[in-house]
Amino acid sequence: MTERLIAIYHVTADAGSIEARARGIAVEQSVEMPVEGIDDPFVLDGIVGRVEGIADLGQGRYEVRIALATATIGAEAGQLFNMLFGNTSIQEGVALVDVELPDSLLQAFPGPNLGIAGLRALTGAHGRAITSGALKPQGLPPAGLAAIAGRMAQGGIDLIKDDHGLADQAYSPFADRVDAVMDALGATGTHYFPSLSGNLDDMRRQLRHAVARGVRGVLIAPIIAGIPTFATLVREFPAVAFMTHPTLSGIARIAPPLFYGKLFRMIGADAVVYPNHGGRFGYTPQTCHDLAAAARAPWGHLKPSLPVPAGGMTQARVGEMLDFYGPDTIVLIGGALLATRDRLTEEVAAFVAAVARHTFT
Amino acid sequence: MTERLIAIYHVTADAGSIEARARGIAVEQSVEMPVEGIDDPFVLDGIVGRVEGIADLGQGRYEVRIALATATIGAEAGQLFNMLFGNTSIQEGVALVDVELPDSLLQAFPGPNLGIAGLRALTGAHGRAITSGALKPQGLPPAGLAAIAGRMAQGGIDLIKDDHGLADQAYSPFADRVDAVMDALGATGTHYFPSLSGNLDDMRRQLRHAVARGVRGVLIAPIIAGIPTFATLVREFPAVAFMTHPTLSGIARIAPPLFYGKLFRMIGADAVVYPNHGGRFGYTPQTCHDLAAAARAPWGHLKPSLPVPAGGMTQARVGEMLDFYGPDTIVLIGGALLATRDRLTEEVAAFVAAVARHTFT
Repeated sequence: MTERLIAIYHVTADAGSIEARARGIAVEQSVEMPVEGIDDPFVLDGIVGRVEGIADLGQGRYEVRIALATATIGAEAGQLFNMLFGNTSIQEGVALVDVELPDSLLQAFPGPNLGIAGLRALTGAHGRAITSGALKPQGLPPAGLAAIAGRMAQGGIDLIKDDHGLADQAYSPFADRVDAVMDALGATGTHYFPSLSGNLDDMRRQLRHAVARGVRGVLIAPIIAGIPTFATLVREFPAVAFMTHPTLSGIARIAPPLFYGKLFRMIGADAVVYPNHGGRFGYTPQTCHDLAAAARAPWGHLKPSLPVPAGGMTQARVGEMLDFYGPDTIVLIGGALLATRDRLTEEVAAFVAAVARHTFT
Repeated sequence: MTERLIAIYHVTADAGSIEARARGIAVEQSVEMPVEGIDDPFVLDGIVGRVEGIADLGQGRYEVRIALATATIGAEAGQLFNMLFGNTSIQEGVALVDVELPDSLLQAFPGPNLGIAGLRALTGAHGRAITSGALKPQGLPPAGLAAIAGRMAQGGIDLIKDDHGLADQAYSPFADRVDAVMDALGATGTHYFPSLSGNLDDMRRQLRHAVARGVRGVLIAPIIAGIPTFATLVREFPAVAFMTHPTLSGIARIAPPLFYGKLFRMIGADAVVYPNHGGRFGYTPQTCHDLAAAARAPWGHLKPSLPVPAGGMTQARVGEMLDFYGPDTIVLIGGALLATRDRLTEEVAAFVAAVARHTFT
């Protein structure tokens, strides 16, 4: 017997075709060729995907459970995504909604370096949500961004993350930006998570520079950087917190609770940014609830991750967000704080105070 | 004036909201904050995205043209995708369908190393399509895969690509597989494009090993590897042909002709694998036609790329595919050839002969 994981898909089909469709997915995500062309017994018994169950969800939708051999993945993070949803992602009417992994496979992935407890120790935020702002707009030089960061720090915010659009542009090179922002933050206690860009070597260089300047966490966009790049950096910088950004990740073909809450966490996300309901993006409250729950839930040896609901959040929503998410959350307000211009420090202070005094019911 | 590219989106909206929606995309893909919070004149004039045009496509769909500053991208391939479609990819009812790039930005990208002419020179295939098979199933040891490759080479196929699921698994390590397959191919003239996996360092090591064994091209999955990883390898291995695989790329949020035909080509795809119409995937004939046309069209200094329509193709479709795509095509038949088992060499020979004798009308 070879060891298997279970990949769970939701498939749109009719009753007469769902069995063939399920077998098709099992083949597509394993040997990707007609099974009748295979005579090797190890491949037939140990590698070909197996349909483990089909459940009718009603309205022409089915839950399909496929058992895939973990030997096809080894311990490689990119190959994990390839085997779970590679070619099937290009087919219509199918979404990857969950996975069940044997402990041996889960053990091959480190999960978050710091996790919730580590991020709380880092920021000194206990018994309340962690407050966060975003550094932007893109186009400002390092001094301009550092001035904004300094004013947010004066308001007492826990951490400032780069906008994911801040890369290594000529008008704001990564190293100069980190130097300027870290100088501006000084001993305020506010942490800065700069955004990594470029290839693995670029990101290593950026991380080394940042860590040397006292940076304790970074923002990374795994779908642009590449899953293996993200996985490599998590292992090479075990003292650094990694906050993931969902840019370019599309919507709705991998269920967000699985994508961000489980798979990004497996690879090493200490905190996962995602679009909160009621902002500029289309996630439902249920999706957001499930995502946050997945990020925090006990799961093998993995530390829990902090959800970072974002995307058009405002000061007016802080109370509602805290009621919805509870204290194990990073509350991120980006543009709405920056739009207050001259009142930035005071608005940040009010935001910080609102989070501090919130009573969880 | 700062230099700008034009990103073209198709947006589902009603007439009363499309202007606000277009402005929202322009902001999301540039500064990602309320414009009223910005006072820096360089950012306001030079960085904030601008709506250049809105055209009614009928039935509640609009074409929106957004001018984005090329300074936000520099020459970094990952940042190109981030600025074209990053956060907007997570919103509903919007697809990126095309880009218009100023020559200075295009010049920053190398395009294919070999291009169509280089791949024809490599394979010796002139005046006809290039024939290709896929090496699988996953789970076979190197010797088993090499035996299959040897039989395909005896049939006279131009090139054999790894299945994208073949990585560096314990049962078939990359280096052992390359050694075994290259030994089996010997002086047949058939080329082998093995599949890269892991992080940038892993892929460099795999490429060095493969090149030392005489390999002249490889398969890479840019969405799993990471766009910057792909871009880096194209530059570091300028004599190697890169065939891209679409695994994990999803469907329909970036128009396939743009995604594979233009963007992958800009970064360096000599040949682009994509799902042909009428196979296991949902692309229409029009999408496939447009994708192939984009891959081959004259475009600045970029060499043209070869389309590789695939995904369930069979020997019976060779004539129809050649009529549809013309000779500047790699015809890839994967599982259907392998399913012929003991007749593999003969079936490959018949496939090769059918391609060679095809008369283009």
